[in-house]
Amino acid sequence: MELTILGCHSATPRNNARPTAQLLEMRGHLFLIDCGEATQIALRNANAKFSRIKHIFISHLHGDHFFGLFGLISTFQLLGREAEMHIYGPKGIKEAVLLVLKLGGAYTPFPLYFHELSGDTSEVLYEDDKVLVRTIPLRHRVYTNGFFFQEKESERRLDMTAISNYPSIEKCDYQNIKSGKDVVLENGTIIPNEELTFAPHKPQSYAFCSDTLYFESLAEEIKGARVVYHEATFLKNNEELAAKTMHSTAYQAGLTAKNANAEVLILGHYSSRYNDIKLFKEEASEVFANVYLAEDGKKFVYQ
Amino acid sequence: MELTILGCHSATPRNNARPTAQLLEMRGHLFLIDCGEATQIALRNANAKFSRIKHIFISHLHGDHFFGLFGLISTFQLLGREAEMHIYGPKGIKEAVLLVLKLGGAYTPFPLYFHELSGDTSEVLYEDDKVLVRTIPLRHRVYTNGFFFQEKESERRLDMTAISNYPSIEKCDYQNIKSGKDVVLENGTIIPNEELTFAPHKPQSYAFCSDTLYFESLAEEIKGARVVYHEATFLKNNEELAAKTMHSTAYQAGLTAKNANAEVLILGHYSSRYNDIKLFKEEASEVFANVYLAEDGKKFVYQ
Repeated sequence: MELTILGCHSATPRNNARPTAQLLEMRGHLFLIDCGEATQIALRNANAKFSRIKHIFISHLHGDHFFGLFGLISTFQLLGREAEMHIYGPKGIKEAVLLVLKLGGAYTPFPLYFHELSGDTSEVLYEDDKVLVRTIPLRHRVYTNGFFFQEKESERRLDMTAISNYPSIEKCDYQNIKSGKDVVLENGTIIPNEELTFAPHKPQSYAFCSDTLYFESLAEEIKGARVVYHEATFLKNNEELAAKTMHSTAYQAGLTAKNANAEVLILGHYSSRYNDIKLFKEEASEVFANVYLAEDGKKFVYQ
Repeated sequence: MELTILGCHSATPRNNARPTAQLLEMRGHLFLIDCGEATQIALRNANAKFSRIKHIFISHLHGDHFFGLFGLISTFQLLGREAEMHIYGPKGIKEAVLLVLKLGGAYTPFPLYFHELSGDTSEVLYEDDKVLVRTIPLRHRVYTNGFFFQEKESERRLDMTAISNYPSIEKCDYQNIKSGKDVVLENGTIIPNEELTFAPHKPQSYAFCSDTLYFESLAEEIKGARVVYHEATFLKNNEELAAKTMHSTAYQAGLTAKNANAEVLILGHYSSRYNDIKLFKEEASEVFANVYLAEDGKKFVYQ
């Protein structure tokens, strides 16, 4: 699993402070999460292959999470995209995108599907044999969801050294072995699967939580996420302002990660009032050990 | 008159190739012309004072001229703007902007006025005692206007050396002198205005023409413009593609500037297929002498 931070700052975009957007590579998928203004430029800077993005998840319709979507879709069109595109976001997103495209006389030569959200409990948005994506209902000034990305159990991994001890095992047997089946040799001997394979990698999971007021039950909602991104717009010294604007402090983000038993916490969505983002890490570290800071262009890799 | 090129490239925004946006300072006004994605970042890079922008002119609703408007208006709100804002653009712009703001739960604490355009002959958009702004109907794939900015005749300029020869002339007389009046001394002597003043600066004028198919009568429409910006998406070698996509070649831009008797031609809106923008200048120079190339961040000053 590889997470690229395309932008991680709140409010207005500046030259070195892009609004929220993330690219999550998971089991062959390339998921785009939020799409603030100029996200397509950040995607180019990250050398992302535009045609591989087939699912875009928009948490809420504030500009710093959404205003780059119009331009990105137009660019897909200019690039001659043919592959289908799925957009998941709050009710209203379809009307806005289609109206803006229509005014520009634009058409999308590729199939464009909108999945509009309005529920207040978690719902599955996408599922295949490798991953599952579901919403995380958040509490913000407008209707907002985070997103939970879960890898499914993968196959067992072949131990090629062990397999080479049995010349009669052929390539066409590998899929059965990866699926966990024992091998029966021609003489009737049974080779237990454990002798020929390693256990599968532990599935990765990622909870994206932005923007939200702190609330206790969020930790329950995201339990099981190994990696958590949580907004930290403010520090404790502005806890009241955080509550008023329905944002979180770095400490609250740490508390949620701790109560969710996460392994890693990544912070972002910093207010521009703070000159030193290290303060966010210090504050969250008071309650949770493994804190990292999102930065524009930074990649996090987990295996 | 000072023209700042915020972006001058066509189609999709890239890191060093911003879409169309220009800032025109004219007689105390700061006019924003077009507003491609991430224009607000370019405005910050140009150290523009956001609060001084009170009129935004949008030529047409293709993304590379328009998609930065949503974010810019949101930023005005975040900055606590109070001054009124006037937006001039094709019919439909109001519905799109208001819908997108509404979905984000945004309100504008400042008065926001839309002036929607649908005419096919030139119309005056703004006029005061210093400047006049009117549309230039263009021919493009969607409804498009260029904009003509005209300074009005200014006052005569005081010749302070000449004035100091007459100690009885006081500061309170200056406004009358600047207006062209002669001075009558106490002894009845008449001092002719020409003795006390210099002629006013010749008014500046600027015609912004993007995007458009080449057509002969455009030169008539913009006659009187001292400075002309004209799109040059293609070179002659793609003249057919220019006609098909309703754009112009650099040569055609030069021809229009020549037939309009302009003093200066600025080119822009280059297609990314050309690696060397100097080719645009070379081609337009075949027919018009005084050609300049727009570049992101470049300033042109005219007195």
